[in-house]
Amino acid sequence: MSVPHLTTALSGPLLELERRILESQSEIEHWFRNQWQEYTPPFYGSVDLRNAGYKLAPVDMNLYPGGFNNLNPEFHPLAVQAAMSALESFCPDAKRLLLIPENHTRNQFYLQNVAALAKILRQAGLKVRIGTLNPEITEPTVFELANGSGIVLEPLVRKGDRIGLADFDPCVVLLNNDLSAGVPAILQGIAQTLLPPLHAGWYTRRKTAHFAEYDRVVDEFARLIGIDPWVINPYFARVGGLDFQAREGEDRLAAAVDEMLAKIRAKYAEHGIDQTPFVIVKADAGTYGMGIMSVKSGEELLGLNRKARNKMSVIKEGLQVHDVIVQEGVPTFEQIDDAIAEPVVYMLDRFVIGGFYRVHTERGIDENLNAPGAHFVPLAFAQALSTPDCDGSPDCTANRFYAYGVVARLALLAAAHELETTAPEVAVAIAV
Amino acid sequence: MSVPHLTTALSGPLLELERRILESQSEIEHWFRNQWQEYTPPFYGSVDLRNAGYKLAPVDMNLYPGGFNNLNPEFHPLAVQAAMSALESFCPDAKRLLLIPENHTRNQFYLQNVAALAKILRQAGLKVRIGTLNPEITEPTVFELANGSGIVLEPLVRKGDRIGLADFDPCVVLLNNDLSAGVPAILQGIAQTLLPPLHAGWYTRRKTAHFAEYDRVVDEFARLIGIDPWVINPYFARVGGLDFQAREGEDRLAAAVDEMLAKIRAKYAEHGIDQTPFVIVKADAGTYGMGIMSVKSGEELLGLNRKARNKMSVIKEGLQVHDVIVQEGVPTFEQIDDAIAEPVVYMLDRFVIGGFYRVHTERGIDENLNAPGAHFVPLAFAQALSTPDCDGSPDCTANRFYAYGVVARLALLAAAHELETTAPEVAVAIAV
Repeated sequence: MSVPHLTTALSGPLLELERRILESQSEIEHWFRNQWQEYTPPFYGSVDLRNAGYKLAPVDMNLYPGGFNNLNPEFHPLAVQAAMSALESFCPDAKRLLLIPENHTRNQFYLQNVAALAKILRQAGLKVRIGTLNPEITEPTVFELANGSGIVLEPLVRKGDRIGLADFDPCVVLLNNDLSAGVPAILQGIAQTLLPPLHAGWYTRRKTAHFAEYDRVVDEFARLIGIDPWVINPYFARVGGLDFQAREGEDRLAAAVDEMLAKIRAKYAEHGIDQTPFVIVKADAGTYGMGIMSVKSGEELLGLNRKARNKMSVIKEGLQVHDVIVQEGVPTFEQIDDAIAEPVVYMLDRFVIGGFYRVHTERGIDENLNAPGAHFVPLAFAQALSTPDCDGSPDCTANRFYAYGVVARLALLAAAHELETTAPEVAVAIAV
Repeated sequence: MSVPHLTTALSGPLLELERRILESQSEIEHWFRNQWQEYTPPFYGSVDLRNAGYKLAPVDMNLYPGGFNNLNPEFHPLAVQAAMSALESFCPDAKRLLLIPENHTRNQFYLQNVAALAKILRQAGLKVRIGTLNPEITEPTVFELANGSGIVLEPLVRKGDRIGLADFDPCVVLLNNDLSAGVPAILQGIAQTLLPPLHAGWYTRRKTAHFAEYDRVVDEFARLIGIDPWVINPYFARVGGLDFQAREGEDRLAAAVDEMLAKIRAKYAEHGIDQTPFVIVKADAGTYGMGIMSVKSGEELLGLNRKARNKMSVIKEGLQVHDVIVQEGVPTFEQIDDAIAEPVVYMLDRFVIGGFYRVHTERGIDENLNAPGAHFVPLAFAQALSTPDCDGSPDCTANRFYAYGVVARLALLAAAHELETTAPEVAVAIAV
């Protein structure tokens, strides 16, 4: 796979951040080692990063990552090794793993992701089969993949407090389904180890809870290496009780946006950044780039037309949006062939295992690239993110990826805090 | 790095062994996971394998591996990730590591190995410096490497119960020096974590102790996957109290050799193998391919000429050989460009991180390739050893490497048993 050509408009300031990260590498790794003694990383995760040159920050953290098919196959062994570590940590005695994917059986890319993930887990030494919640799958069904291979989806079977397939009783269950609509009855109260835990699902998880933990993680990290936490942390605020269809709360939302724009403007002045501030408004729960707006003033949110209101009010599974996160917009200055690109970093256990660029030819530097129907071109990183240097100079390609890996792991650590903070004292069964 | 072209004369039977290993992959990985819960793997190790087609077996296990410079740079991230795991296991709080190499400062290849190892450890997030036992190094000294870079060796400084450099107090000390001549006074009774432990040194370690543990490991493993243990285990015997110069014990050694040849002949008959049995006689302690003979009858050991006696009687550091291991010879049927090749597999923590082929153009299939002054051509494996399949067929290249990785890990597990069995109850200081 070829090396993507990257251009960074503001290389100076980012080199400064990278230099701090590189100089502090042994302190950083030592700090992470200690953190992972205290906090258990999620089984896996992916982090969307934005690199503005003056700022390198996570804008989303996914605990049910798709896109394993987009990773550079050359780094596959890294993923297998990390999966072995995760298995030792969560379920050393496991032999059989049941993978439960999303119900998108018509999405060829998603199915390829499932196949790639299953391959990693098989190569880590598990018997892996795929059980689907999709009620349309009533018997083992082969789905053909573009590469000529196929995967078999099978209907789930519940027996007492165990979930499995008709002839397969797994030791551990791995969800690649984000539970946006709640925990299906068939998954409630099962005896097997379930990864990630149910409360990582978007039916209850909130982006603002994640970024509140990220604030804490970054404050400590920023002190460690002596940086302004803002250069790796986007401002955020939560606005609740909204009803876009009924135009309820628009004014509060607009005020929150203007307040954040003022804060960003002040930071831009402090750091001498000549940019127009913008914020992203998105559903506090959920993924898939639905319910997302990029705005440059609160006024834009007043008197939204019906189309815009519809777009903001509904996310995956037809759920209504009542709470949003207002997040500082971080422009991306990375480009591949004149198209805007943002890095996505993948982790298994506490290890960075790869990543790719999400590329959009028709979107601006201040827009969300993870949009439904968007044309995006996955590109693999040229270097593994765990190896910080090539010749030691901070402007070489590998170093930028090391910095990405550090920031992504900060988000992973925040997710570990988040899952601990939000864990129900007793697993509460939530009927759907 | 290009893919080495390999020819295997007897592909049939090895495919059978590989097929068993592949079919049992999830049992094997599950078994290893459980073993590593009970036994701590050594920090690192390398295993010399011989592949005879009908038999794939380790012939040596090195706990102070050199040759990190020979590993495929593409797998470097795997080594970094494994080093991170090892650090978490042995010394999570470590920030500074002191690496103590062999004294071969005139061996360019060895210095490149030290540089490659230091790079892995630095990229795992440690401050790494190199302290030498070599009395000729009395101040920090730069050694230039063929790739244009250099490494700095510095004199060791002992302060109370801590070892370090003049301005460097390490948390952990990693030996890449096999202590053939004993534990130098400066290393005795130090407070820091020392890896591997002192009793892994060749001043006290015995090959026969390792292979006795390997016997136990393989017996359990062979039952697990239903194979004759012999197909992955060479016979061995110990003969002690020898004095080659004084011709003492020649008769006992010859008898042990003939007894083993008879056992091998019986196994060859049982498995229908049309080969001439041979055995390797080598020093029970020590490395570097010194003190090694390949013989096809006990008679060859009677009345050795002076040159042969000299060769057998002295190993590294001028030590006298009194005890030998008589080991079943496993012919190698792997060839690269008509030269004989044997795989060497490298491990860090419990992970296979790579390997290479030791190649010899002027030696036969029944000779030792790790000989001083030998012309040998390191070649990297084309695939990481942790990933067992390509398209799932057992005769594809990646699968052979998976089998190599499994057998190498069995030797690593035997080394873990061995270090536990041989650990002194109280660390005994051994003066030199």
